[in-house]
Amino acid sequence: MAYAAAQASIGDSEFDRDTTITERAGEPGVYDAELSAGWTIITAVNGGYLLAMVGRALAAALPHPDPFTVSAHYLTSSEPGPAVVRTEVVRVGRTLSTGQASLYQFDETGAEVERIRVVASYGDLAALPDDVRTTALPPSMPPYEACLGPEAGPAPIPGSNAIVDRLRLRLDPATAGWALGAPSGKGEMRAWFELADGRDADPLSLLLAVDALPPTCFDLGMMGWSPTVELTAHVRRRPAPGPLRISITTRNLAGGFLEEDAEVWDSEDRLVAQSRQLARAPRG
Amino acid sequence: MAYAAAQASIGDSEFDRDTTITERAGEPGVYDAELSAGWTIITAVNGGYLLAMVGRALAAALPHPDPFTVSAHYLTSSEPGPAVVRTEVVRVGRTLSTGQASLYQFDETGAEVERIRVVASYGDLAALPDDVRTTALPPSMPPYEACLGPEAGPAPIPGSNAIVDRLRLRLDPATAGWALGAPSGKGEMRAWFELADGRDADPLSLLLAVDALPPTCFDLGMMGWSPTVELTAHVRRRPAPGPLRISITTRNLAGGFLEEDAEVWDSEDRLVAQSRQLARAPRG
Repeated sequence: MAYAAAQASIGDSEFDRDTTITERAGEPGVYDAELSAGWTIITAVNGGYLLAMVGRALAAALPHPDPFTVSAHYLTSSEPGPAVVRTEVVRVGRTLSTGQASLYQFDETGAEVERIRVVASYGDLAALPDDVRTTALPPSMPPYEACLGPEAGPAPIPGSNAIVDRLRLRLDPATAGWALGAPSGKGEMRAWFELADGRDADPLSLLLAVDALPPTCFDLGMMGWSPTVELTAHVRRRPAPGPLRISITTRNLAGGFLEEDAEVWDSEDRLVAQSRQLARAPRG
Repeated sequence: MAYAAAQASIGDSEFDRDTTITERAGEPGVYDAELSAGWTIITAVNGGYLLAMVGRALAAALPHPDPFTVSAHYLTSSEPGPAVVRTEVVRVGRTLSTGQASLYQFDETGAEVERIRVVASYGDLAALPDDVRTTALPPSMPPYEACLGPEAGPAPIPGSNAIVDRLRLRLDPATAGWALGAPSGKGEMRAWFELADGRDADPLSLLLAVDALPPTCFDLGMMGWSPTVELTAHVRRRPAPGPLRISITTRNLAGGFLEEDAEVWDSEDRLVAQSRQLARAPRG
């Protein structure tokens, strides 16, 4: 595959700078942060970016380094600007520890408004045995070069989507018909995914990746805002360097809600993350 | 289909009696409960039963009646005996409200030990529009009469499994080979499911149903304890009367962990619940 070599390294990249957290002096487990305007869709901050920031705070608060399973309930929409993440250590075990975290922003009086509440269990991916008995197969999709980047068509959502500039997202043409007014109706989306500055993926950036594609409802012909109610991600393996392949699917759109399942595969054909979210279907 | 008519009704059944919660006088949102020995596997209390009990406490604490999405992290194993559920109202919205709850038991000094921590968003299933654009299909499996009840073979797990007497579970023969030493290796399990006293399903009993089948790892040839780390369930519709069909699948067993996805279908062929859990694979 002919893809660009990494330009930015893990720890020194846009994603790392924009998910920086700073522990408050005298308040252990409380982290100040700044939600960057660089990861927005129209004016709302991307839910995966939020999850990665909360995930970084939990990695700092817990004795285990890697998110294994992270459950997030989205309460109110986030905006670029100051935020604070308050963490709690729930239980520390030998192989897994569990924590809770909420990210707050501030109203006009300075009062904290909760944006997202997370419970997560962390472990050490490097300590896992290498047994693999998966029956899952990587998504069937064309090579990187044959998939469609933003230069190939109109912007995925009308308006200013700063996040598009932070990602190198190349859609499988079979799931890009919606951009030309011809959605497949299957509720599928597949893409190659990298951060725009070439930083390789790590467990924290996988929390961004699981919620970074255009929503499956576009492929069902429903163009509009599909806010996440809850998203749970499982990180199963430290990703190998190189672009990821992400496949998202919806099997059940009913009663004004839909589930969206994501699988993230690395360059060694390993399933590195799975997620499922419940989202509201777009109106109309 | 020739299945028994309901003998017990919703609100007056084993399941209802065994998930009874009593709010403490002077402590709003705090509920005393008793974990019944009737819902155990060997000596551990079933995780779905626990989730249903916590779900009942959240239904009491929140202004909306039905669980829409419930995320549970399992911290320590539960035993039959006294428990207390402490709830917190996180956010109240027009169509959804979010709450948190933890179930505790007591150590020998009487100190509370947390068993399970839950964040959940509740709504009103009866208020949802009837639009269905699902592409999911009910599991392909033989009729009720052609599936296998406990009388057909050995007990699924050696030891005393009280929960077997509380459920009318009939396994698809294609996914029951493990009971005869011949697992399919596919990581699938399908069954018809009812409560043994004939009580019809409701949104709370769906929280039991998503974790009530023998684990998929049995079908992968791994017989042993597969403790849940985290389980998230989405309830999508109020189930119609009659037996449910439940399909569970595992696509990725790797690094000592596996995901288990459940779909629950009602007698009107509607997908009423979906769940995914991360569990530890059995040792050896």
